[in-house]
Amino acid sequence: MAPLTACFLVIGNEILSGRTQDANIRVLAQALNGRGIKLAEVRIIPDVPEQIIRTVNDCRARFDMLFTSGGIGPTHDDITSACVAEAFGVPLLCHEESFRKLEVLFPAGQFNKARQRMAWLPKGATPIENSVSTAPGFSLGNVHVMAGVPRIFQAMVEWLMPHLEAGAPLTSASWYSYDIYEGDLAEALTSIQHDFPMLDVGSYPFDEGKKRGVALVAKGYDADTVTKAGTALHDLIVTLGFSPLEGDPPRAA
Amino acid sequence: MAPLTACFLVIGNEILSGRTQDANIRVLAQALNGRGIKLAEVRIIPDVPEQIIRTVNDCRARFDMLFTSGGIGPTHDDITSACVAEAFGVPLLCHEESFRKLEVLFPAGQFNKARQRMAWLPKGATPIENSVSTAPGFSLGNVHVMAGVPRIFQAMVEWLMPHLEAGAPLTSASWYSYDIYEGDLAEALTSIQHDFPMLDVGSYPFDEGKKRGVALVAKGYDADTVTKAGTALHDLIVTLGFSPLEGDPPRAA
Repeated sequence: MAPLTACFLVIGNEILSGRTQDANIRVLAQALNGRGIKLAEVRIIPDVPEQIIRTVNDCRARFDMLFTSGGIGPTHDDITSACVAEAFGVPLLCHEESFRKLEVLFPAGQFNKARQRMAWLPKGATPIENSVSTAPGFSLGNVHVMAGVPRIFQAMVEWLMPHLEAGAPLTSASWYSYDIYEGDLAEALTSIQHDFPMLDVGSYPFDEGKKRGVALVAKGYDADTVTKAGTALHDLIVTLGFSPLEGDPPRAA
Repeated sequence: MAPLTACFLVIGNEILSGRTQDANIRVLAQALNGRGIKLAEVRIIPDVPEQIIRTVNDCRARFDMLFTSGGIGPTHDDITSACVAEAFGVPLLCHEESFRKLEVLFPAGQFNKARQRMAWLPKGATPIENSVSTAPGFSLGNVHVMAGVPRIFQAMVEWLMPHLEAGAPLTSASWYSYDIYEGDLAEALTSIQHDFPMLDVGSYPFDEGKKRGVALVAKGYDADTVTKAGTALHDLIVTLGFSPLEGDPPRAA
């Protein structure tokens, strides 16, 4: 069973300017793994309408699902909803239920036009709940539009996952060793990849100051095959005279 | 003077799988800001040759410069150099100087074929120095190929920057306030953006547990105009009855 594929479109000047460190890619990738959906590409683009519209249409056609983050707040550069509406050729409409939920949040006179914009969704969209600050994301066809603020993004991802079609779950086997170098095992690893063509077999150097080494990982959608490949990775480390440790290497603080 | 534009292509399954948190985008973005080069798009793609070749050719045509990270080590999934060579239609050749530098690093017998691959560069490429682990990146035309391991990536970026053509430097003015919400200032901010059409004017909510608020930023390539826009952002916060603080909001630990 082949996994479903997804693309993640990060919309916003603040990542590209280096102002903000992205925290959402990994959250989405790991949540999708749990649903058997493979994150196949990420694009980070600025708040430029033509570029958003073109990229949404390109990516929703090429992948089973498209996720976006950013640009659904109340300010002038929050143009994602309007751009997605235009990409689908539908109008933006006031979503009554979302409007009422937002209206009760604000004291009289403070639910201004800018804030009301957050209740306007493309025609046909279903809201994605926002347990942090109420203003919803939305799903339209295979496109899922979420907020960029990490705490809100994460809440939306958690809400959304059970509503998505699931693929076969991804499983993996990981072994690592200190002191070993990629160059010592490259040829043997190539041969393991050849033995398991259905899997992704990779080596990942880590370097946490004084502790460095390499992690070996086999990943795929057939659990038995992954287990066999894991044994081969373990044995490779032993053959080279090192001590294999199971799992992921510890990370720097 | 218009800035030069750059695209960053992150090559590797480990970011897409959620295994690894990206640390390189921000490093590159900030280094490019210092050279007056605008990071205009980022793409993260897997180790799939056709996809790498197609994306390299697409992006080196669309932007003034293309930077890549990942896939230049000694293992079977390190295919970036071969793919860039194919994208340019040139062969991979052994780069003598890089070969000799690597050769002296390893005890007799350990400079094996896998490690020798790291000295093979596309014909016409110029090495990018690697002060951490010697194996070079390279520049070919407007494409700059670097390692994915953050410590090596950072060393290569530092070495490379003075070798790049520089654009006009980007300047910015930032003011933030606690307690304020985007929805309170959205309309006034739109009007500031209209007054300074050459600049990027943006608002960035931050939320560090109990301390939340919004930062307002004006960015552009004309320092006097940026200063004027900064004063307008400051005054907007005052008008709303809050206390503007200069610079970026403190980050969560």
